[in-house]
Amino acid sequence: MKQQYAIGIDIGGTNTVFGIVDHRGDTLYRGAISSRKHQNIEDYIQELYEALQPAILQVGGIENIKGIGIGAPNGNYYSGTIEYAPNLIWKGIIPLAKLITEKFGVPAALTNDANAAAVGEMMYGAAKGMKDFIMITLGTGVGSGIVANGHLIYGHDGFAGELGHTTIIPGGRLHPGTNMKGSLESYASATGVAYTAREFLEQRPDQDSLLRNYPLDGIDSRIVYDCAIQGDTIAKEVYEYTGQILGLALSNFVMFSSPEAIILFGGMTKAGDLILKPTQKHMEENLLPIFQNKVKLIFSELKEADAAILGASALVWEIKDRV
Amino acid sequence: MKQQYAIGIDIGGTNTVFGIVDHRGDTLYRGAISSRKHQNIEDYIQELYEALQPAILQVGGIENIKGIGIGAPNGNYYSGTIEYAPNLIWKGIIPLAKLITEKFGVPAALTNDANAAAVGEMMYGAAKGMKDFIMITLGTGVGSGIVANGHLIYGHDGFAGELGHTTIIPGGRLHPGTNMKGSLESYASATGVAYTAREFLEQRPDQDSLLRNYPLDGIDSRIVYDCAIQGDTIAKEVYEYTGQILGLALSNFVMFSSPEAIILFGGMTKAGDLILKPTQKHMEENLLPIFQNKVKLIFSELKEADAAILGASALVWEIKDRV
Repeated sequence: MKQQYAIGIDIGGTNTVFGIVDHRGDTLYRGAISSRKHQNIEDYIQELYEALQPAILQVGGIENIKGIGIGAPNGNYYSGTIEYAPNLIWKGIIPLAKLITEKFGVPAALTNDANAAAVGEMMYGAAKGMKDFIMITLGTGVGSGIVANGHLIYGHDGFAGELGHTTIIPGGRLHPGTNMKGSLESYASATGVAYTAREFLEQRPDQDSLLRNYPLDGIDSRIVYDCAIQGDTIAKEVYEYTGQILGLALSNFVMFSSPEAIILFGGMTKAGDLILKPTQKHMEENLLPIFQNKVKLIFSELKEADAAILGASALVWEIKDRV
Repeated sequence: MKQQYAIGIDIGGTNTVFGIVDHRGDTLYRGAISSRKHQNIEDYIQELYEALQPAILQVGGIENIKGIGIGAPNGNYYSGTIEYAPNLIWKGIIPLAKLITEKFGVPAALTNDANAAAVGEMMYGAAKGMKDFIMITLGTGVGSGIVANGHLIYGHDGFAGELGHTTIIPGGRLHPGTNMKGSLESYASATGVAYTAREFLEQRPDQDSLLRNYPLDGIDSRIVYDCAIQGDTIAKEVYEYTGQILGLALSNFVMFSSPEAIILFGGMTKAGDLILKPTQKHMEENLLPIFQNKVKLIFSELKEADAAILGASALVWEIKDRV
C-alpha cells in the first residue's frame, strides 16, 4: 500500500520535533533539531530534510509518504504561512508549507500548534469519534483548537480559536505580551497560576504557607503544585481561583459551540483534580440549564511528547490529493 | 420545474407568520395566524394547514413544494423538536417537524429563530457568499446564529449559539429570566437598554435629561432612542455603554471563530450609528492585533418582516432528499 505514512513536525520556540506516523497513529521514528540554530529558513529546512532522510528510507522512500503536517505557533492553515510568531527566530511572514513542499516533493499542511493537537486528539485520543469538541492547551500560555461538525474551525482568515485571549474579567489582570486586560491566558496558564500565587501571598502577609519557603520571584506553577499536594491552603486556593476563571470561560465557550467535550491538554493538567474539580464546578454554575451536565470535561489521552507529532501528522490525512 | 418552492414559517410567542418562497428568495405569498389560540398543538397545525392551502394551490399544489422550514424559539435542528420554550404556550418537548411532515406530506426542518435568520442572511442578505459569519439578533433578547465553513454550528446537541447568555461582566446585572449575572442579554437587548437608562437616571439625580419626562417604569428602548436622536446626553451615553459591552462580547466571539462579518439584526439596529459606532470601537479595542480591522460589522439587509420567513424557508434547500 502506497502513501501509508505521514510526517508530523512540531515547531516550538526552542526545539523542532518530528516523526513518521502510520494510519493507526503509531509513531515509527522520532527525531529533533533546534528551532533556533538557523536564522535563515532555507538552512533550517535543509537541516530538517537531512535529519528526516534516514527515517524516510526506513519506510521505503518518499513515495510512501502522503504528506507532511506541521504545527507551529501562528501557523495559518489557509496560507501555509507562519505569520509574525513572537517566539520563533524567523520574523515576518514565512511561507513554510510551500518551502517544505518544494524541498520534500510531497504536499505539506500547516496549522497552529493547538489546532494540530485538536486534530491529533480527534484521530487518536480522547476525542476519537467526536464531531464537536474544544481542545484547550494549558501550558505557558493558553491555546485552543475548536472542532465543529467534524472540522477544525479556521475562520475566514485561518486564525480562529484564540480562546486564550478572550476577555474573561473586564479590566482585570494585564497580560504583558498582548497588553490586554483580563484575558483567560493571564489567569489559566502556568504563568497565570504563578502570578496568582504571588498575588495571594502579598495580599495575605499574615497567613502561613509553604510557598513562603521560596523567593516570591522564584515561584512557578510547579512549586504551587508541589505545595498544593502537601495540603497548603494558599496553594490549593490558587487552583480553586484558577478553576473559577477557567470554568467561567469554558461556560462561555460551551454556549458558543455546544461541544460534546472539552479536552484539557498541556502541563497544567498534571495538577489533576486540583484544577479539574473547581473548573467543572464553575463551568456548570455558569451554564444555561439546557447545557448543564452534558459536556464532558476531560484530560487529553495523548502523551504530551507524542501529541504534537501525532496532531501535525494527522493534518496530512485531510490533505486533498493536489500533487 | 418541480419542487421549486419552499414554505417558511416563523413561530413567535404571539404570532406565526408564513410564506411561500422561491429559489431567488422572493416571497410569493404571506400570511399569519395566532400562536396562542390553540393550547393543543394538533389544532394549531390544523389551522396552519388550512391557512396555507390557498397559497399552496397558487403555486400548483404541494408537489411543487420541496419542504417546510420552521424557525421557532428553542427549536432543535437535530431532533426537530421545540424544547421547553418559555414564550410559547406548548410546554415540554413538541415534535414539531414530525407533526408538520405528517400533516403536509413534505419534509420539514426546524431550527431556532436566530439560526433561521442567519441562514436567510447567508442565502439572500448581507452574508451572501460568506462562509464564516455571526448573526446577532438584538431584540427583546439577544439571539445568535453562527456559521463556520459555510454551515450553521449546531453543536453536538443542536443548541449551539446561545451567545446572548454568555457572561460578559462576571457578577454583573442579574437576568431575571435565567437568574444568571452579567450576561450579554442583560445589557445589549432592548430590555437591557431600558434598564441601563433607568439605572443612569437613578445614579445621577442632578443631571437633566429628556428621559425624565417619562415615568421611570415606563421607559423603554424606543423612548431612549427618541431622546438620543434629540441629543439627550444620558440617552446617548446609554448607547455608548451598550456598545461598550456589546463590543467587548463581539471581540470574544471574533477570537473564537474569526468570522468575516458580524451581522446585527433586530429592533435595536434601528438606532443605527448610535449603537454601531461604540460597538465597533470597543470590539476593535479588545481584539488581538491579528484580528483588528478585518471583521465587517454590518446591519442585516433583510427586511425584518421578511427575514423570518426567508430564513426559515432557506432551511429547506439544505434538506437532503429523504422522502
